[in-house]
Amino acid sequence: MNFVDKLVGAARSNNSMVCVGLDPDPDLMPQIGVYEFNQAIIDATSDLVCAYKPNLAFYEALGIEGMDALLKTVEHVPQGIPVIADAKRGDIGNTAKAYAKALFQTFGFDAATVNPYLGHDSLEPFLAYTDRGILILCRTSNPGAADFQELSCLESTSSPSPLYELVARKAKAWNAQGNVGLVVGATYPEEVKRIREICPEMPLLIPGIGTQGGDLASAVRYGVDANGEKAIISSSRAILYASGGGDFAEAARRAVLKLRGEINRLRETL
Amino acid sequence: MNFVDKLVGAARSNNSMVCVGLDPDPDLMPQIGVYEFNQAIIDATSDLVCAYKPNLAFYEALGIEGMDALLKTVEHVPQGIPVIADAKRGDIGNTAKAYAKALFQTFGFDAATVNPYLGHDSLEPFLAYTDRGILILCRTSNPGAADFQELSCLESTSSPSPLYELVARKAKAWNAQGNVGLVVGATYPEEVKRIREICPEMPLLIPGIGTQGGDLASAVRYGVDANGEKAIISSSRAILYASGGGDFAEAARRAVLKLRGEINRLRETL
Repeated sequence: MNFVDKLVGAARSNNSMVCVGLDPDPDLMPQIGVYEFNQAIIDATSDLVCAYKPNLAFYEALGIEGMDALLKTVEHVPQGIPVIADAKRGDIGNTAKAYAKALFQTFGFDAATVNPYLGHDSLEPFLAYTDRGILILCRTSNPGAADFQELSCLESTSSPSPLYELVARKAKAWNAQGNVGLVVGATYPEEVKRIREICPEMPLLIPGIGTQGGDLASAVRYGVDANGEKAIISSSRAILYASGGGDFAEAARRAVLKLRGEINRLRETL
Repeated sequence: MNFVDKLVGAARSNNSMVCVGLDPDPDLMPQIGVYEFNQAIIDATSDLVCAYKPNLAFYEALGIEGMDALLKTVEHVPQGIPVIADAKRGDIGNTAKAYAKALFQTFGFDAATVNPYLGHDSLEPFLAYTDRGILILCRTSNPGAADFQELSCLESTSSPSPLYELVARKAKAWNAQGNVGLVVGATYPEEVKRIREICPEMPLLIPGIGTQGGDLASAVRYGVDANGEKAIISSSRAILYASGGGDFAEAARRAVLKLRGEINRLRETL
């Protein structure tokens, strides 16, 4: 089954657009192993989510043990739920091929986030995995995103557009296999709207609600496609660290239930 | 000692601008372990180089064993030679902090390549390591680089410039601690020249000679600073796989000697 079908299937069966970001931070976690932590979070929430999204930085920071916990975590997610590698990789041809192999074969992810700065040939080895999802960074959720993504750029045949719009247009052109999506921060609602107009059919991964202060209502309204689907609304810290104590998994479940409920109430108003 | 001093020190004592890219590819390597391969390459070349540059993709593709080989490889490089993580990372604040920790603390690299697409706050956690080198992708060596890096961009106060020039100017502004450098492909000599004009004092990491067909003469001429230093000319496959047989280390040494000689003859003509 390809990524988009798996995503839509999980979203429908769990009636959820919530993606839980699995970002284990030893400063915030209870005193247990990373895999045990993730396992408890997954067991407590897998009937309530449309995807999980480990960010590789947190595992790499823990060295070999962290990478081992990552491998086990991907394996532990129930079959029907897609797992997105938040990796933001981008490199030239033969190296991109090694990254795609690492994420899709060695670690077994269903999808990966990638950085567009190096252009088409840096994404081609990912796109060649037609059953996986390639989620291209478009308009990120952080303040510094404006440094380059908002720059007004000239293409020969058109009026100036912000760089992120040109990324969205290229992504559309690169989506011959239906395996491309975009990453768009909830902190920029107008940009979410604009990107959804340019790419009406793609899955949009939308981080930035919760700790980062993005607007949930506009993330839902502008993030979904014409069927009211394919928005992946991601939250990490607000769920994982809802309680710092021994009840962290129950607290995470309550946090996901609350977020899923808020999103579903907003979906009813569309 | 900070990265730039360590780099210049190694380049002077080994009279070399050659950086060996340690990109172990099981399809091209002899049938030995990755660490054993790297160890032999390092032992055969460490008196001839200014830096080593493992690209993380090749280690991640090998899973836990690969990451273990990477850790040991970094440790095996002699003290005076800087080791650059070719990682091309870029992520938002707290995640960028985890990546910087992974590369500079967990793995102990002297420098890392980073992607500018997410802007200043995505690089800040790296820049905070004032003794390490932060090498920002500017104009990469691959054909697809033109998709975005060549786009003509408008900033409010200036005439249109290609995106890569704006990245070079921002990098200059972010170099308050003297720990920033740029990555510029040898495949685009005019761009190397232009970037060296914008950033006369920064180290430039220049991949793209060898297999990719970049021009060595212009990489040397335009890549060096006013003192004829701070160009890091990187080659991977042409050195590592100079021989596919049991004499791979000796063949790698001969390939480095040849490249160092060619570069040094070009330096004499400056």
